[in-house]
Formats: sequence, C-alpha cells, structure tokens
Amino acid sequence: MKREELVANIRRKKSFLCVGLDSDIKKIPAHLQQEEDAIFLFNKAIIDATQAYCVAYKPNLAFYESLGAKGWLALEKTVKYIKENYPDQFIIADAKRGDIGNTSQLYARSFFEHLDVDAITVAPYMGEDSVTPFLGYKGKWVILLALTSNKGSHDFQLIEDVNGKRLFENVIEKSSQWASSDEMMYVVGATQGKMFEDIRKVAPNSFLLVPGVGAQGGSLEEVAKYGMIDSCGLLVNSSRGIIFASQGEDFAEAAGREAKKLADQMAQLLG
Amino acid sequence: MKREELVANIRRKKSFLCVGLDSDIKKIPAHLQQEEDAIFLFNKAIIDATQAYCVAYKPNLAFYESLGAKGWLALEKTVKYIKENYPDQFIIADAKRGDIGNTSQLYARSFFEHLDVDAITVAPYMGEDSVTPFLGYKGKWVILLALTSNKGSHDFQLIEDVNGKRLFENVIEKSSQWASSDEMMYVVGATQGKMFEDIRKVAPNSFLLVPGVGAQGGSLEEVAKYGMIDSCGLLVNSSRGIIFASQGEDFAEAAGREAKKLADQMAQLLG
Repeated sequence: MKREELVANIRRKKSFLCVGLDSDIKKIPAHLQQEEDAIFLFNKAIIDATQAYCVAYKPNLAFYESLGAKGWLALEKTVKYIKENYPDQFIIADAKRGDIGNTSQLYARSFFEHLDVDAITVAPYMGEDSVTPFLGYKGKWVILLALTSNKGSHDFQLIEDVNGKRLFENVIEKSSQWASSDEMMYVVGATQGKMFEDIRKVAPNSFLLVPGVGAQGGSLEEVAKYGMIDSCGLLVNSSRGIIFASQGEDFAEAAGREAKKLADQMAQLLG
Repeated sequence: MKREELVANIRRKKSFLCVGLDSDIKKIPAHLQQEEDAIFLFNKAIIDATQAYCVAYKPNLAFYESLGAKGWLALEKTVKYIKENYPDQFIIADAKRGDIGNTSQLYARSFFEHLDVDAITVAPYMGEDSVTPFLGYKGKWVILLALTSNKGSHDFQLIEDVNGKRLFENVIEKSSQWASSDEMMYVVGATQGKMFEDIRKVAPNSFLLVPGVGAQGGSLEEVAKYGMIDSCGLLVNSSRGIIFASQGEDFAEAAGREAKKLADQMAQLLG
C-alpha cells in the first residue's frame, strides 16, 4: 500500500489504530480452544468486529511460530482473509527480522511474496545490508526498530556516542539514507512520551508505528501531542487491550467496543 | 546440552565445526526439487554425510520460513532426525529473534519446547527484557549477536560511547550480567579477524558462534589464533561452502568432503 492510500484511509476512517493480532493460543476463549482452526477463527471474529475502527492489523509472528507449522497456516489464512474482505487494511508482519544480505533476501521473499503483507518490522543491529534487501518491493514497507516500548529499550538504544547522539538517533539518521519515508517507518514505543519530540527532529516526515498503548501503559494523548504530523504519521497499535478485552463468548463484541473507544479518541485528536 | 558435553564432543571429534543448514529451495540439486519433501531429503543426506566431522548444526530460519507452513514442517522433521540419530549434535536455531518480554517468552516456547533445539540466536537491540525470557531453560542457550560477519556490522556495532566503548562491547558487558557463560554465547563473524582479541577481553570464557568462514571469506586460522581458549570456546560455522559444494547428484559426498577438510584443519588447530 502506498503512503497516500494509507493517509487517505486514516482521514476517511478518522482513525490511526492498528490492531495487534497477538493471538496467544493459551489466552483465546475456552470455547474456541477445541476447534481445529482455533487461531484463525479467533482472528476472523476479531477482524470482523474491529475493522470499522482501524486502518491496520499487526500479527506478531511469535504467537504463530509457537504453534509451528500449524501456526503458519493460521497466519496465512488470516492474511488472506483480511486481503480478500478488507483490502483497505494495511497488514504488518511484526517479525523483527534482520540477517546477512542473502538471508534477509529470503525473509523478504517470505513476507512480501509468499505471505504478501504490506510491511515487516526489522531489527537494525546488523546494519545496512541486513535492511536493504527488504526495500524496493513496490508498495511494501520496512518498519525499523528505533526506540521500543519496553524497559530494555534503555539498555542500548539510549547509549550516546562521542557527539551526544543516542543509538536510536544514529539508527534513524543512517537508515534514512537507505530509503525514503515512502517505504520506511520506525517503531517508537508509546511509553516514550516526550521523546517523540526528539524522534521528530530526526524523522520529521516518517510514519511511526507506535506499540505500547493499553497493556503497556503508554498515553495516546502524549503520542499525538508530540508525534503527530500533517499527514498524521502515526499508526498506534493496541494488542492485548483489544483482543483479550473479554475472554468469554462475547470476546469479539468486547474487542469491537475497545477498538471503537480508541478510534473515538483518535477522531478527536485528528481534529 | 551442557557446556561440558559440548566441550567433550569437540575434544572427542577433534572438530568445532558447525554446519549451517541454509537449505535454499532454489539452490538444492535439481533431482530433489520435484520431491514433496525436498528440503528434508536434502538435509537428511547432508547430515548423514557430514555428522562425523561436525559437532553442531545450524538451520537458519529464513530458509524454512520462505516456504511458509511447509518449510516449518521440513524444519521440524530435520531437528527430529538429528536428535534421534545423532543426539550428540548441538542444534542451533539461527533465528535472530528478540521482542518485548511476553513475546520473547513465546519465541522461547517455540524454539525450546516445541522445536526443542539447544540454542537460539537473539538480537540484542531491545535489551534485557527481550533476552532474559530465553534464559533459564535447562541445557538451553542464548547466542546473542555481538559483532556480525557482514559489512553492515560497521554501521552500528562499532559506534563508540563517550568512554570509547563500542556498541558490541557494551552488548557483551551488559549481557554478561544477565547470564553466565554456561548459557550464553556470542555471535562474532569470522571476517572480524584480529577483533577477536578485543572480544576475548570482554568475553574471556564464553563460547563464540563464528559464521563467515567460506563463502563470506573469513579465515579459520585467524579465528583460532585470536579467539580460541582452553575449552576451545569456538563453534565455527560454514553453510554454503559445505552444503552447496556440488549441486549435482554427488552433493552429499561433496558436502562430506568439504566438512572433512575443515575438520582436518580444526584438528590441527586444536593441537
């Protein structure tokens, strides 16, 4: 999906919500767990109930890999279902991949050709030749980890170099030479609050994928205040807060309700 | 597998070779490509032909994921085959994972419980709580990226902090507070040559997983000269140089021959 389409979807739906499909088999409602196709059935119901309120879905690969081959099948079916029924949804494979060149090329093939998602999250540690194989696919995006939402983000991402530049700033500055803001986004955790001002100094025009609202405690208002730009430039993700809002038979309605709550707040913030 | 077992296997076999099962479907011999189970059949033949000369196997997940669910099945069968037939082999899932705590926990479950390998490679960018969920599994290992074999390793891994400490040194120093050298190793590329001296200053007793000999041009002699310790402390990996030594019907014999060559050199270096 091209940037203009994504921005148009955000304006039309008055939402920049991304729903995280972290569909942990151990947490989905009991009445589904017995089904052969439990994860897919769960995802399908969640998607149908939330699609009106969001512009993106983000399955995190860990939750599918934990089931081995069966999990991959559920993921493939989920992506296919979204593409066939809600083609205006932006699909992000949250995979945090990154390897030497010939290997990253293979990952790119998996995610952009085989699975055919719009974007993949990539870890920057291995540098340019681990990232660039994901670039150059028409309408596809790399979403590079910059300043993540977890406590461990402080361990290395904030290390200052001799010029006082922190690692996440080095990552953004260097990587913005590899790709334009039409094909690269950055992950910045909602828990980082005022740091979004610093992010906007080095990534003034980039879309940011923002996890950490909800279960992780980040503030949507702060993210919008310090991170929003003219073209919105934000995809704010909530996973557990939406998909596990209820673990009873009403799980899908509850998810829809939570997604709508966030979308209503977003509509206000978009003004 | 415990450290003492690994060291004992290295001494008994006089080899610290790891064979990388980067079994790209597009590169395996033509006569196998038509088979339903092509990747597994290829791996099985390679393993049978090389097991006498190596102490470890390292499937890189990218090559399996590129085939979706089918690839995962091939991976599962491969791991099972090694464990049943050659239980003294150390199996490394080269996955370079790393995510927020609850997600890394899921990855740990996938690799250590479901797939049941001995070790997984992990990317350090997200810090402590992205790494520690992989720790504490008895006899299982985290292999953390430190100084990788690719050109892009220079982009971020060598950035000096205000005290002149480079990022890879920060990664090793900090992470060695999270786990002992009985359950954490580091990835250091064979292409880094003399840098192994610097690595040994911060990781004097750790095992190092060393890719980059062969196709990537690293020198085994240099690695041993600057990186070997009393308990060897090295697992040197070759992938393409062994498994694609021939792409004809003699691929397995050719792989065995290349593995033996490296093992013979290693026997000399072990003295």
